[in-house]
This record gives sequence, C-alpha cells and structure tokens, in this order.
Amino acid sequence: MNDLAIHLTDEKGKHLYEQIYEYIADEIREGKLLAGEKLPSTRSLADYLQVARSTVELAYEQLLSEGYIESVPYKGYFICRVEELYRIRTDEDGESGRRKTQRPERAAEAAQKDCFSEKRERSFDIDFSPNAIDMSRFPFGTWRKITRDILSGDRTELFALGEPRGDAALRETVCRYLHASRGVNASPEQIIVGAGNDYLLLLLQYILGRDITAAFENPSYRRAFRIFSSFAAGTVTVPSDENGIRVDGLSASGADVAYVMPSRQFPTGTVMPIGRRTELLRWAAAAPGRYLVEDDYDSEFRYRGKPVPSLQSADTAGRVIYIGTFSKSVAPAIRISFMVLPEGLLGAYEKNCGFFSSTVSRIDQTILNEFLLSGAFERHLNRMRKAYREKHDLLLECLQPLLDRFRLSGEYAGLHVLLTSKDPAREESLLERAAACGVRIYGLKEAALAPFETDCATVLLGYGGLDQEKIREGVRRLDKAL
Amino acid sequence: MNDLAIHLTDEKGKHLYEQIYEYIADEIREGKLLAGEKLPSTRSLADYLQVARSTVELAYEQLLSEGYIESVPYKGYFICRVEELYRIRTDEDGESGRRKTQRPERAAEAAQKDCFSEKRERSFDIDFSPNAIDMSRFPFGTWRKITRDILSGDRTELFALGEPRGDAALRETVCRYLHASRGVNASPEQIIVGAGNDYLLLLLQYILGRDITAAFENPSYRRAFRIFSSFAAGTVTVPSDENGIRVDGLSASGADVAYVMPSRQFPTGTVMPIGRRTELLRWAAAAPGRYLVEDDYDSEFRYRGKPVPSLQSADTAGRVIYIGTFSKSVAPAIRISFMVLPEGLLGAYEKNCGFFSSTVSRIDQTILNEFLLSGAFERHLNRMRKAYREKHDLLLECLQPLLDRFRLSGEYAGLHVLLTSKDPAREESLLERAAACGVRIYGLKEAALAPFETDCATVLLGYGGLDQEKIREGVRRLDKAL
Repeated sequence: MNDLAIHLTDEKGKHLYEQIYEYIADEIREGKLLAGEKLPSTRSLADYLQVARSTVELAYEQLLSEGYIESVPYKGYFICRVEELYRIRTDEDGESGRRKTQRPERAAEAAQKDCFSEKRERSFDIDFSPNAIDMSRFPFGTWRKITRDILSGDRTELFALGEPRGDAALRETVCRYLHASRGVNASPEQIIVGAGNDYLLLLLQYILGRDITAAFENPSYRRAFRIFSSFAAGTVTVPSDENGIRVDGLSASGADVAYVMPSRQFPTGTVMPIGRRTELLRWAAAAPGRYLVEDDYDSEFRYRGKPVPSLQSADTAGRVIYIGTFSKSVAPAIRISFMVLPEGLLGAYEKNCGFFSSTVSRIDQTILNEFLLSGAFERHLNRMRKAYREKHDLLLECLQPLLDRFRLSGEYAGLHVLLTSKDPAREESLLERAAACGVRIYGLKEAALAPFETDCATVLLGYGGLDQEKIREGVRRLDKAL
Repeated sequence: MNDLAIHLTDEKGKHLYEQIYEYIADEIREGKLLAGEKLPSTRSLADYLQVARSTVELAYEQLLSEGYIESVPYKGYFICRVEELYRIRTDEDGESGRRKTQRPERAAEAAQKDCFSEKRERSFDIDFSPNAIDMSRFPFGTWRKITRDILSGDRTELFALGEPRGDAALRETVCRYLHASRGVNASPEQIIVGAGNDYLLLLLQYILGRDITAAFENPSYRRAFRIFSSFAAGTVTVPSDENGIRVDGLSASGADVAYVMPSRQFPTGTVMPIGRRTELLRWAAAAPGRYLVEDDYDSEFRYRGKPVPSLQSADTAGRVIYIGTFSKSVAPAIRISFMVLPEGLLGAYEKNCGFFSSTVSRIDQTILNEFLLSGAFERHLNRMRKAYREKHDLLLECLQPLLDRFRLSGEYAGLHVLLTSKDPAREESLLERAAACGVRIYGLKEAALAPFETDCATVLLGYGGLDQEKIREGVRRLDKAL
C-alpha cells in the first residue's frame, strides 16, 4: 500500500499537505488509484514521508472534502468512484486540475457555510452548523410592508445610482445605531456601505495598499484570510491564548495589519478582555501604517452580562477599521455590510476607490434604513436574542451528560459552543463518530489557516438553525457516539 | 501675474498637469492666491512653463472641476472663494491634501455622471448629459407587482445567501437572453452576476492576474480605465481611427488585454466593422494570455439598421470577456451586471475568487429574473427604444441649423450624438458658451485618458434624460451661442 511515490519538494508557495493532496488527487483522476482501494493510515503515511501526521491529515481532509476519498469509521480512508467526480474541461493554458474538480453547487454550498470547507455529500439528520441562522422568525410581513410602501411612492430617485459610500440617510442611521449599541465613534462620512464583508475587505487593498502584511489568529475566519491572501504582500498567523491574539507574537511577526474579532473570536468564542485590547491598540499606535481590522460579526447576540463594547470605541489613535454586517442580524441575502474607516484613511479611500459605484441598490438601502428607523430591527433583534438564548440554554442543559468527557467553552454568546475532549482524541474521529449517527458537527481545525497540533480535539456545535427537538435529539445521539 | 513659481519635476508618477494643478490648489488653500484674482491664460502659462498648452488646460480643468477656480466667458479663469471649499480634516499621515477638497456630494454626483469629471456647481436649465436615462417611463407598477408576489411567498430561501456566481435561474435566463439578442455563445456556468460593472472589473484582477498591461482607446470609458489602473501592472492608450481601436497600435503597445466597446464606443459612438473585429480577434488568439474585454454597455438602443452582434459571438478562440449591465436598460439602481467568461478562465475564477460571496441579493436577482421571464423587460426595452428614437430624431431635426458649423456623428444609436466643429475651436470655449446660456454640454476631452490634441473641438449631446421641449429649447440656445 505504501506505493505512493510522493516526491515532496520545497517548491515555493506549496505546502507539504498540498503536494500530498495533489499527488493523490492526480493518481485518482488518472485511474492509478482505483475506487475502493484503501489509503494508508495518516500515521503510516506520515512515518513513510517523514512529515507531521497533521500534514497528512490536512491533505486527507482536503481529499475528503472534495469527494476524492471517503472515510469509513474504524476502517480507514477509501478511494471514491472517479466517475462521480465532476470535471470542468481542462483549460487551454494547461493549468493543473487542482480545484477544478469542485462541483459548482458544492462551491456555492461551501461559500454559504462561510468558513468551513464542505464535506463529502452525505445525509445528516441534524446539522449543528455554526453558521446557520433562524430565518423562520424573520419578520417577512414588516419587510414586505416597508418594501411596498417604498415602491408605492413612485420614487424615481431610488432607481438612480446613489453615492459610492452608500445613501447618506442609511449611513446616518447606521452611525447612530453603532454608537448606541457598540460605542462606535464615527461620523457618517466615515461609513462605507457595501454588498457584503467580502467586498469591503477587497476595498482594503485600495485603502491600505497591497504592500502590507496581515496577521491572523489561527484558527480564524478562513474567508477573511483568503481575501487578504488574495492581495496582501504577506499574511502571517500569530499565536493566541485565552485572551485572544498575542501582542508579543504580533509584534514579532512584522505585520502592519491585524484582523481580529474582539467581541467574540470565530471560531474559538474568545472574548478579548480590556487588558489585551489596550495592548493591541498600543501596538497599532506605535508605528505609522498599523491598523486593526475589527470584525464585529455577531456582537448582537449575548445572553449573559453586559455587552462588550467595540474595540473601535476605545481607539483614540484612529487605527481601527470596524466592519459589521446585517447578514447575521437581518438575513444573509440582504447583502448589506458596512465599514467604519478612521478619518486618516478617508483620503486614501476617496483617492483610490472613492469612485467605485455603490454595490448596494438604493431600494435595498432605503428598505433597511426604514427597517432600522421604524424600530422593527430592534424588535427583531430582541426576539432573536430571546429565541437564540432559549436554544443556547437548552443546548447547555442537554450537554450536561457529556461534560465528564468534554470541556465546554464559548457559551453565553453567539450561535455556537465548543466542546474540547478531556482525553486525547482526534478531531476527525469525533466528526466521523457523530456522522455515523447522522449528526454533523464541525471541527476547530476546519477553520485552521495553517496546520496546528492539538492532542485534545475541539468540535463546534452551532444551534442557530435548529429547533428544540433537533437540539435534544442531536445531543442525545452525540452522547452515545462520542 | 506670472508669479506662479511652479517648479516642475520629473517626479515619478506625477504628470506635469498634476504638478501644476497641485501647486495652484495649494496656493489657493494657503491663501496665497486670493478669491477674484485672475489666473494667467492657458497659453501664457504654457509659454512661461515651457509645456504644451493642453497640459495647462488639463490642470485648469481639474481646478475648475474641483471648484478652485471658475471660468468667466471671454474674460478668463478666476480664483474662487476659498471658504466655499469643503475640507476633510488633514489626516495624521500628512498625506497631501489632493482630492480631499472634493465635496462628498459632488463625488457622488461625479460617480453618477460615470465618465465625466464634475463641473463647478452652476445652474443649468438644460443638461445634455450623455449618461442620463429616462426613468419616467420605468414600469414601476410591474416591478412593484413582481416584488410583492415574490415577497408574499414567504420564500425563506430568498433570504439565504446564494451562489457566488449568481442564482442559477437568473444565469440561465441571462444566458438565453444574451444568445437571442446579442449572439453570445455561453453556458450559464460562464456567467458571473455582480453588483455593477465596477465590481466585475475588479474581479478581473483575480481572473487575469495583476501582471497584465491593459490597452484602452483614447478617449474611452474613464471609469473602466481607472479601475484597470488600480490593479494592472500597466495601462496604455492605443490610437484609434474611424473603425475603432487600431490593431497595429495594439500589437505595438505590448498589451495583453484590450478594453473595447465594439457595438458603440464611448464616447465616440464608433461602431466597429466586421473587418476590425476579425483583426482584433486574431490579435487576441495570436498569443497565450491575450484577452478582449467587451463592454456591451448600451447595445440595446439602435434606431436604424440591424443590431450589431457582439464581438463575443464571433470569438472561436475563447478570448472575449463579455460584460453587460441592466443599469442602462432597466435602472441604474438595480445594480445587476454580468460577465461572461471564456471557459478557459473558469478555473482561474473558481480558484482565485470563486469563494467571494455574491454581491447581489437573491431577492433582487429573483425580481429581475421574473422581470425578464415575464416579457416585461422586452416590452420595456421596446418602449424605451421607441421613446429614445423619438428624442433622437427630434434632436437631429433641431440640429439642422448647426450643421453648417458642425459635423454630426454617433447618431442612430445609444443616447448621445457628437458635434465636431468644422472650424478650429477649443472645446472649453464651446462648453463655456453653452454654459453662458444655461445649457450644459460635454466635451470629448472630458473622457480623455491622456491629453490629446485636436484643432476642431468635439462636444457630446445626450438626450436620454430630456423631454421634447428641453431638447428643442436647448438646441435653440446652442444655435445662438455656438
């Protein structure tokens, strides 16, 4: 079986795991490895190739997620039938087939899952996705009424292209909302409205330039990492501890920009205490051109204690770029996010990308503005907070029997909690055991930006999209399986 | 008067005109040049500085457009009151004040004007903007009804994030529409839906890479040029003739990508004949990595002869990237554009930016899809074509008395025509004379990507946004003034 003649090189920009992944994927595509064949265990292949076991695990994960291989609990990894693979015609430039085997629908699904690579298709009865939200409670009636009222006015101006930064009225409202709820200090001029976080992060290449090194915690929000990687001269991962990103590591990294989620780090759920925040702000202020990108993605949902104010609210040096979205709090399809720029960056914005047309229709901006102004948003948030808290509390109650084997963290906020095994355990094995009983849970390493080692696996259980019955039943099954 | 001690340098990346502009703007901001003072004429300053007169003209144009100076017909250029200037606080990095004096509202207005730098605010009775469209005929009723129907279904899935490329249903419809109306050959997989042309052009940095040199005609669509300039290793302008971009010039330029508008070049109105198209496609196919970006921005409006099929329809080598928008044909606020990628670029798209979330809400995509499928779009287009043709015909009729002095071009399509003076004339002077009688017309040089010389000025008259009475009255005034 160890006839995998993988030749690992120091090829620039290619991780070892990628090389292993590509070698095996090519072998499968070329029919050299046949359906049903068993792959060596991660341990034995790691021994054979003289690499860390986690490197092989990462390669296998990628193969699993792209449907090349499948994992059979207690048995190992097996090659899938290659006819099942979807192929996009090879392009004329003869680029490697990497990534092209992804099915378009799967790519879409992956994007929707936001930060987790998609798993091999498989049916799950219960999906503890940390990204799912509860759309069943969306106030369609209110939204519809606002839309109807706005469209009834024959307001021709709404069909005209608006300001690049977003409509003044919406920016004014967002500004007041952010100040009241998150302590954000800004004027409406500093707010840029855009169609989603991805788009706003893309704009940073024009505002900060591409000659930056961006630092991320590991694990972190993988999509943001990929976007920064797409334009920044460098990206680095920096160690973190129970208080969040380590500032000594950040200083040592040579980065000028750090992407952080102080209110609640994804996926770890860490809330950054004031001490670390101060350190971080001091780091940023210590040299010109240093900036902190604060992604305040789900600050709305906290179920205990006082809300944590934003990092931006404590920033006196103008070094925090604050990003927020209405995707979690209203609906993912709304496609309205916003960015608060420090005054010092407005010149660069105006000069380098201030002429880009707005990516959000004025009708949508007007509907959202009315949704906020009318109080409907606040009522909706309160309703959702209550609904999510009930799910959260129920989940915690159900998880009690597992707490002899697992340590719970990340509770009392957001839409997921984390379970860390007390005894050594492999993440993949936990996910597999859950999957075997029809339950999908998520691994911390799936949000890894670079391979990391841990003896005791951590899994994520999201509850936003599940009803009470599913939560009860899901945990019941997990209790037996894990 | 010639006390403008401008020191011109070969400073990297700074045009001479920029240096002149910055010097004068600084003098005004610092109060060294006072309101009411007269600037030297462009001729005398050009003599004094030993630069081309067009260089000084470009600097003055910029100053005019940003409200630093104003032009008084037959008298010259005068400094404006500095208190009228809007200032954004100077940022801490001590960046030059350039561009920061732009009023936000003006910036918005400029963006809306798409390709023309905004003029000093001034009241015009009649504005022959080439970018204005007639929104008074937008079928609000139909749009409202479709929206209501869609929102009434409690279709929760519409509020979920959709596929990065756009909803499959909409891509399918656009695909069929493009094939039927523009001869575009593509499968729905090749279509990327995005929030506006600017966004789609931005994606090209991921699909084509940044190591490209992009060629443009001069004049051309300035916004597209600025976007390419924001990421491409190089941008060049290439000579054009009455058939469009010159392929010998393109070959000589070393460019790999050319941005063209074969159906109707903006602003010249040139329709590229089949011979030049073939040459262009041959150029693209002659070397790997060469691509043509076809912006088919207002192909819908032709008033005589058969519609010109798209360049893409004749492309057998997969070298045309086709871009279209619903901004002109539906409404600018719809914010839905689309790009048709050659199959050979799908791999790069998928790999480098296929994970970016869609920038268009699913609700908007569904409304537009229904608008297209129901036949409402076709009816609307036919109605608009008729309305615009009537305006076009009336304009041509009214322009008869001017044709002793001007040569007409760019008629029978689009939403503007061009007038070129038969006798030597300066563009600025024509615009000024029109402005003096309350009529705003636009100069060809305002769409210049680089200064160009011409003895006989060309001005643009757009009619999309004007009613019959305005057209009549506007031309009456122009006849007297020019």
